[in-house]
Amino acid sequence: LVSVLSSAIIVYRLPWTWKCSKRLMKFIHAGLNTIAMILAIVSMVAVFEYHNARNIPNMYSLHSWIGLTAVIFYSLQLFLGFAVFLLPFAPVHLRAALMPIHVYSGLTIFATVIATALMGITEKLIFSLKNPAYSASPPEATFVNCLGLLLVIFGALILWMASRPHWKRPPEDNAKVLRPIGGTPEGTEAESTMTDGSNADKSDLRINSEAARKQNLKLDEAGQRSTM
Amino acid sequence: LVSVLSSAIIVYRLPWTWKCSKRLMKFIHAGLNTIAMILAIVSMVAVFEYHNARNIPNMYSLHSWIGLTAVIFYSLQLFLGFAVFLLPFAPVHLRAALMPIHVYSGLTIFATVIATALMGITEKLIFSLKNPAYSASPPEATFVNCLGLLLVIFGALILWMASRPHWKRPPEDNAKVLRPIGGTPEGTEAESTMTDGSNADKSDLRINSEAARKQNLKLDEAGQRSTM
Repeated sequence: LVSVLSSAIIVYRLPWTWKCSKRLMKFIHAGLNTIAMILAIVSMVAVFEYHNARNIPNMYSLHSWIGLTAVIFYSLQLFLGFAVFLLPFAPVHLRAALMPIHVYSGLTIFATVIATALMGITEKLIFSLKNPAYSASPPEATFVNCLGLLLVIFGALILWMASRPHWKRPPEDNAKVLRPIGGTPEGTEAESTMTDGSNADKSDLRINSEAARKQNLKLDEAGQRSTM
Repeated sequence: LVSVLSSAIIVYRLPWTWKCSKRLMKFIHAGLNTIAMILAIVSMVAVFEYHNARNIPNMYSLHSWIGLTAVIFYSLQLFLGFAVFLLPFAPVHLRAALMPIHVYSGLTIFATVIATALMGITEKLIFSLKNPAYSASPPEATFVNCLGLLLVIFGALILWMASRPHWKRPPEDNAKVLRPIGGTPEGTEAESTMTDGSNADKSDLRINSEAARKQNLKLDEAGQRSTM
């Protein structure tokens, strides 16, 4: 779950994907988050069934409260992200206004999920290690503590990658080039789902720009105004 | 501890402090962090003494491992922050290069401290609630769960405040104004500990600018080049 979430977060930060179209990257981001959501729901159902089978009460611990809160916000985030950024209906100014909130909630939900996992690990170690107890530091305890520490380091690395401005996907020039007539100039970043050409998904940026230049020439021939 | 840490983090984000000199704000930021560090050390000593008095092993839990890691990084952060940003010896380019790392580590340590607190709350609830147990959801359990949830909400709010660009303290113009000769123009933000006038601590920005303008006039009278 955490690894799918992380890959969904950093998918725009991998320089080798910058030649892929923004639309393709958005689909990958949305797809990975959908997979993570499905995994979260499956694991929650498993926990409830395990609790019911063993007559353990549900939803009593802080771990479960914070975990459920994170999942609720995550589903909201997924729904809003889908409606605003993936569907082509939202106006550019709405996208621009919601993007910082989307990024902030995504990263905060990610950190909350890691905190929930750490609480879950703590609970599990206390409940499962009985003879010797957790406090006697048996090898399992040390091993799982190391895993928990690695989880924190991993989360910190993902947050570092996601917050470096120079690892941000550069804005598309081809979006501008593809639309010489009309279209607001500030729309090039947020509007790209709508402005990407239909062939953009499978071609790299260079080929794409060439195609755009040809399309521009065609438009020029048709006597239409070009802003190039 | 968390509240002192939080106030140390957001101290630059309070618009009513923007009229205070940057040097004063730095001292407040460093002072609050030093208080938080002292509180962290006192509480760690208390935990070790409590464990020893009750014959409970030390440092066996994931909570303790991650907590100690956070405190170690926090002391590093405090030492580096003091050496680079508070003492006037570090060159501007070093300050500029380290500032994003300082901000990132500060916020990551803050999030880790909250995660550590949540794990500590989980442990404490499991160990202390015996009859009725934590799983029976006695009122104490519900109450402390609410506190834990509030801690997460509080942490999320602090991270929101700390990451909004428009809540960032505006760069000082008076630093530039006070130093019409020499000094690199890009140094106005990072260099301000050195460039703040000696009277800047007690005066507000408007008075300060007037004083600076007068000083500039004096410099002009003295036949020196003004960049105004």
